[in-house]
Amino acid sequence: MDGFDFRVVARDGRARAGLLRTPHGTLETPVFAPVGTQGTVKALTPAQLEELGASLVLANTYHLMLRPGDEVVAELGGLHAFMQWPGPILTDSGGFQVFSLSAIREVDEDGINFRSHIDGSSRRLTPETAVSVQENLGGDIIMALDECPPPHDRQYNQAALARTHAWAERCLRARRRGDQVLFGIIQGGVFPDLREQSARFLTSLEFPGYGIGGLSVGESKPETYAVLDLLGALLPEDKPRYLMGLGTVQDLIEGVARGMDVFDCVLPTRLARHHSALTHEGRLNLLRSAYRRDARPIESECHCYTCQHFSRGYLRHLVQAREMLAATLLSIHNLHLLMELTREMREAIRGGRFGQMISEWRRVESRGAESRAMA
Amino acid sequence: MDGFDFRVVARDGRARAGLLRTPHGTLETPVFAPVGTQGTVKALTPAQLEELGASLVLANTYHLMLRPGDEVVAELGGLHAFMQWPGPILTDSGGFQVFSLSAIREVDEDGINFRSHIDGSSRRLTPETAVSVQENLGGDIIMALDECPPPHDRQYNQAALARTHAWAERCLRARRRGDQVLFGIIQGGVFPDLREQSARFLTSLEFPGYGIGGLSVGESKPETYAVLDLLGALLPEDKPRYLMGLGTVQDLIEGVARGMDVFDCVLPTRLARHHSALTHEGRLNLLRSAYRRDARPIESECHCYTCQHFSRGYLRHLVQAREMLAATLLSIHNLHLLMELTREMREAIRGGRFGQMISEWRRVESRGAESRAMA
Repeated sequence: MDGFDFRVVARDGRARAGLLRTPHGTLETPVFAPVGTQGTVKALTPAQLEELGASLVLANTYHLMLRPGDEVVAELGGLHAFMQWPGPILTDSGGFQVFSLSAIREVDEDGINFRSHIDGSSRRLTPETAVSVQENLGGDIIMALDECPPPHDRQYNQAALARTHAWAERCLRARRRGDQVLFGIIQGGVFPDLREQSARFLTSLEFPGYGIGGLSVGESKPETYAVLDLLGALLPEDKPRYLMGLGTVQDLIEGVARGMDVFDCVLPTRLARHHSALTHEGRLNLLRSAYRRDARPIESECHCYTCQHFSRGYLRHLVQAREMLAATLLSIHNLHLLMELTREMREAIRGGRFGQMISEWRRVESRGAESRAMA
Repeated sequence: MDGFDFRVVARDGRARAGLLRTPHGTLETPVFAPVGTQGTVKALTPAQLEELGASLVLANTYHLMLRPGDEVVAELGGLHAFMQWPGPILTDSGGFQVFSLSAIREVDEDGINFRSHIDGSSRRLTPETAVSVQENLGGDIIMALDECPPPHDRQYNQAALARTHAWAERCLRARRRGDQVLFGIIQGGVFPDLREQSARFLTSLEFPGYGIGGLSVGESKPETYAVLDLLGALLPEDKPRYLMGLGTVQDLIEGVARGMDVFDCVLPTRLARHHSALTHEGRLNLLRSAYRRDARPIESECHCYTCQHFSRGYLRHLVQAREMLAATLLSIHNLHLLMELTREMREAIRGGRFGQMISEWRRVESRGAESRAMA
């Protein structure tokens, strides 16, 4: 684990501000990672991402192992060279997508057989191949293979947890590269005892960081936050915690309040491609004819490139005319909003103002604006 | 015509380098204008266009009058504010698209009835509406309404020419704004006598500049260049000449050699969206599996953002995975190539080296590389 360490530099309640050093730069946490599923954050150049202040980018192992293939990425210099992202990269294990994207799959104790959603070919993912694929991809942070059951199925979660734990041990043993860190993934659905069991087992293996999986798959917000409350207290204070796949404004704020450090979510860029802009007063659907002659930016206080230049009327025109620039400009705005939010949270934690920030936010949120905006 | 003038600053044979002053900046000619059909150069932000060194941008009257509507653009501050292009903008008259895009049209002496290709609604374009729409759009250079017949139909060309000339006079009379210039458009198909007749009539009206229309619609290269040879000698030396719709490398070089100043073409950005990269040795089809593991840039000598960062292997992956970034990165490269070419031509003309440049280029071209590349 050359070139890595994690240090909490400030606390406010359970919330922490930290520094996560990687061979490709030091991340200030809490951090939100835009998702570059196929080795590109959709509709944005790396230069635009850098301008947005992005630091960590996520890429999906499942997609890249199928296309262009992890050996191809390795031959072209690994993900940093391939997608030209100079900062830290996190890759997931592929497990989540195998369960959500591939039509046919069979899990056994050794691994998972599945069919590619691209060409229908038979593929197999085991803890060992998940690690070797991620070593080929060459991200800074890689994830252990886990099984993602439906969150409310206790029996399935119990059986899956045994596999997830055995696979975590095998992933640790399979590692070859010294310039990546492998995070374990805590599962257990909505069941506190299973979550606790998972946390206790995986922390005994002394991973350098922990992912919290299985929480963007159909459970309620109170259920999610109950799991985070539990794990925020159980997980070691000196290791980074990565809340996988969650990234609404509410998730970020409530996650940070419960001691989470790293977040990723496709939502801001996916909404952008479906003509939705995040704002502090709810989402705007830019296809609405109400915006046709609207000379205002998405948000008048926003400092992003989009709001500094373009009217809602122009964005509405781009959306209606199906111009690619719509996705680019809305992605810039939506990511900027989340980047600014995490920056504000880091500063608030360092300045001892996070408690105040979150109670103000919850007051506004309880008025329902946020639930309309980010549900 | 406040804020406009045109000055030839250097000549080399028939080729000229000039300065075309507009209220939104001075264009160095020869100049190539990227096409922003619907008020956006597809897949690029204005910031990216500026980085490419673009100076003049074209927008299409036909598209914008139908969607979002020229009154909407006017209400949102005109095209410069709407699409946030700070430099000069040229709008065409809409005539060419009425003839090429709308399914049903009827031409009479007064104007053209047509059906919108978007919603099938009945619309009418006359010289007066073509001018008032372009005044609403607010470009710096606007174009007279013309009729674009098939280039080899003599009878049709003869009849259309009478209308085009009458319409040119009506466009001149219809103008209200003093901060735009109106260019006349010379038609006449491939027929030297008609072209000469058109040039003599329109120059008698003393337009501040001339478009040469009807030359990207099915005629051969020798036919095109014969028309340009003729018009290069007939048109007044002190007025800018705009070769409408042509913009391959060959067209630019052979057009400049014949005294043309302004060019526009959808080709570089359209090819980019169909995974083709222009190079000095022909086009690359980035979908080819040959590029899968190719770590080289599109062109090793190229200084564009794309070639400075990305491998053919990555671009091939983006194309195959249908990622929007493919269109952005290929548009950047293709436009950069044409921007560099026009810059080199300007410098060659100013340095008295254009004759040498063009004979070298023709030597290479005669080996067939260029014809494979840009045909």
